[in-house]
Amino acid sequence: MTFSFPISSRFASAPSSPVRDILSVLKRGGVITFAGGIPDPDLFEIDDLRAAYEHVFATMPGRALQYSVTEGEPELREQAATRLSRQLPTMASDIAVTTGSQEAVFLIGQVLLDPGDVVLVERPTYLAALQAFDLAGGRMVGVECDAEGMVPDALAAAVAKHRPAFVYLVPNFGNPSGRTMSAARREAVAEVLLRTGTPLVEDDPYGELRYSGAALAPIAAVPGMAAQTILLNSASKVMAPGVRIGWLRAEGDVRRALDVAKQAAGLHSPVTDQLAIARYLDRCNLDAHIAKVVAVYRERRDAMAADLAAVLPPGASMTRPEGGMFFWVDLDDDTDTGALLPRAIDEGVAYVPGWAFYADDPRRCTLRLSFVTSPPEVIREGLGRLARAFGWG
Amino acid sequence: MTFSFPISSRFASAPSSPVRDILSVLKRGGVITFAGGIPDPDLFEIDDLRAAYEHVFATMPGRALQYSVTEGEPELREQAATRLSRQLPTMASDIAVTTGSQEAVFLIGQVLLDPGDVVLVERPTYLAALQAFDLAGGRMVGVECDAEGMVPDALAAAVAKHRPAFVYLVPNFGNPSGRTMSAARREAVAEVLLRTGTPLVEDDPYGELRYSGAALAPIAAVPGMAAQTILLNSASKVMAPGVRIGWLRAEGDVRRALDVAKQAAGLHSPVTDQLAIARYLDRCNLDAHIAKVVAVYRERRDAMAADLAAVLPPGASMTRPEGGMFFWVDLDDDTDTGALLPRAIDEGVAYVPGWAFYADDPRRCTLRLSFVTSPPEVIREGLGRLARAFGWG
Repeated sequence: MTFSFPISSRFASAPSSPVRDILSVLKRGGVITFAGGIPDPDLFEIDDLRAAYEHVFATMPGRALQYSVTEGEPELREQAATRLSRQLPTMASDIAVTTGSQEAVFLIGQVLLDPGDVVLVERPTYLAALQAFDLAGGRMVGVECDAEGMVPDALAAAVAKHRPAFVYLVPNFGNPSGRTMSAARREAVAEVLLRTGTPLVEDDPYGELRYSGAALAPIAAVPGMAAQTILLNSASKVMAPGVRIGWLRAEGDVRRALDVAKQAAGLHSPVTDQLAIARYLDRCNLDAHIAKVVAVYRERRDAMAADLAAVLPPGASMTRPEGGMFFWVDLDDDTDTGALLPRAIDEGVAYVPGWAFYADDPRRCTLRLSFVTSPPEVIREGLGRLARAFGWG
Repeated sequence: MTFSFPISSRFASAPSSPVRDILSVLKRGGVITFAGGIPDPDLFEIDDLRAAYEHVFATMPGRALQYSVTEGEPELREQAATRLSRQLPTMASDIAVTTGSQEAVFLIGQVLLDPGDVVLVERPTYLAALQAFDLAGGRMVGVECDAEGMVPDALAAAVAKHRPAFVYLVPNFGNPSGRTMSAARREAVAEVLLRTGTPLVEDDPYGELRYSGAALAPIAAVPGMAAQTILLNSASKVMAPGVRIGWLRAEGDVRRALDVAKQAAGLHSPVTDQLAIARYLDRCNLDAHIAKVVAVYRERRDAMAADLAAVLPPGASMTRPEGGMFFWVDLDDDTDTGALLPRAIDEGVAYVPGWAFYADDPRRCTLRLSFVTSPPEVIREGLGRLARAFGWG
């Protein structure tokens, strides 16, 4: 007889992340992947990061290896505040360091959600946020979106109907939608949130990866919104995801409540990594690095835009992302992209089926394609395989 | 008007950890601290750890900085399995890496507890476990303990009465009790757990820090118990806490459920740190390092044992720990050690009031003293200050 641990009801039905499961399949090789939002490792600033770690070990090893405070190392909070202040005045005391911004998303669910509380999200939205909020007992409700982002009237109606604990948005180059919320739409959304006193969780991991169009300030920068917003940032997409360093900006009591949650969840983020990233931000030119990454990713975005437009069947639509990592394809027919995934993997290409990104009522004829991991010629080959797997053309 | 985020009920009443709060106070300096279980940083193997990080950056930087799998890096799982196998045969596939063992404690609460579920714990027990289980909705019930650990008859009665989701134990040099569960008691406790099919969470961060007496196998090593136990280990106490690396041993479905929880909580632990610790375990002599730490900590334990016995008032009792980090003092009178803490800090000494370590019905005349942070002469001075603050002698 094998012993079986009784699993809590919040987990009994919790599916493993389809993205993470696909990543496991890919370990076997030979597959061109458009699945994960995986930065190209050839672009990592290895020498600079290595020097930053070396500096930490050379100058403050005892501190780097010791227990520390939950809210994060002062140097890193200072660097994060300085960077965020380009768009929104921020004090170091408003910053909390997190072990990747996924930890921030999870802690927010824990701190703001009682079982049954509603979270309003975009249709579609970031699946790991759905997963994290679900574990806290949240009930996610998708709100209608158009090309400019969440529709203000639909948001107002949903707020009135559901009295949500908060609204979760990825306004820049949404994951998975690739969509960017326009400046006018940010103001209109903020107006609804301010009028109704609805908290905002604004997730911005990709904001600095912009390949065309003008940079837009976060919704948190709309007058009145800063205190009503928890703004999330990450080193994962612009520096390196493996170090698991992110940070959030939140004012007052809610930041302290998030600290208490983090005490219970893991005491604090690794000190070595925090100090190394702080050193990197202090001494290296992150803007120059981002410019280099942007040039490469822009070329890949353009390649995928052209090649995807060439292979998609009539009736299908795709977003044209101004930044970030993803194209979103809607076939607008009865295709089930989840059912077709095994055939695509046999053909040698991977993507994420769109259903996973919906809080409710999934559109199964959708898929997410990341364009950042491979160069243009590989993107073209991968899209060719995708067309064969789907029987296009 | 300032905006106020509505906080979930699981957090509305969640107190900040008294240990972490005391650590904040200590930043002002001049205070001899017996408060935290803080390893002496002079004992960190800085050169070896630095070389391990350097090796990672020199040989596999792209991998170290990239996203990776939730369950942890294969090299580290292999090293952890090899080390655990000295006491209990363990496969790498039974290991999951965690960001410190506090993350393991937290994830276990999430995966095994429905709101209202009972967790049986020692009286007193590790406070951050209480905090983590509490956030998952657990109801902690303290079970009677004597000098050998949890009393089997009391455990059997509590299991029958409460049908707990699991029992949480720190059998080696308990935090805060300093107590070690005897071999006979481990067998008797296992017998109750096996007979009733009750899962065990066995937390063993200090097991290798033994200063006297013979090493004891974990309860998980009692025949039949391995599949029924989640065993927690950590690099924090024997290597360095700042890197936040721990691991758990769990067989089958429950390990996979913990992976799903970890996906939502933070995707994976930092890869750089995992690979560096794996390299250290592969190439450095952790046993020799532990022997060095043990020699120093043994001297400090002996110093505190002698000096504490000399200052304690009649009627007070203290544990005599065979390892780990803590003495537990019970004044057995109407002293409230929480109320006296500010006076002690004014006097220049800090400790953790005992009330925080009780699931219910706290004994307020207790306190926890860590002996590992300071050398004998500082311990003596600190205990003199404590005696003055408490009006002893």
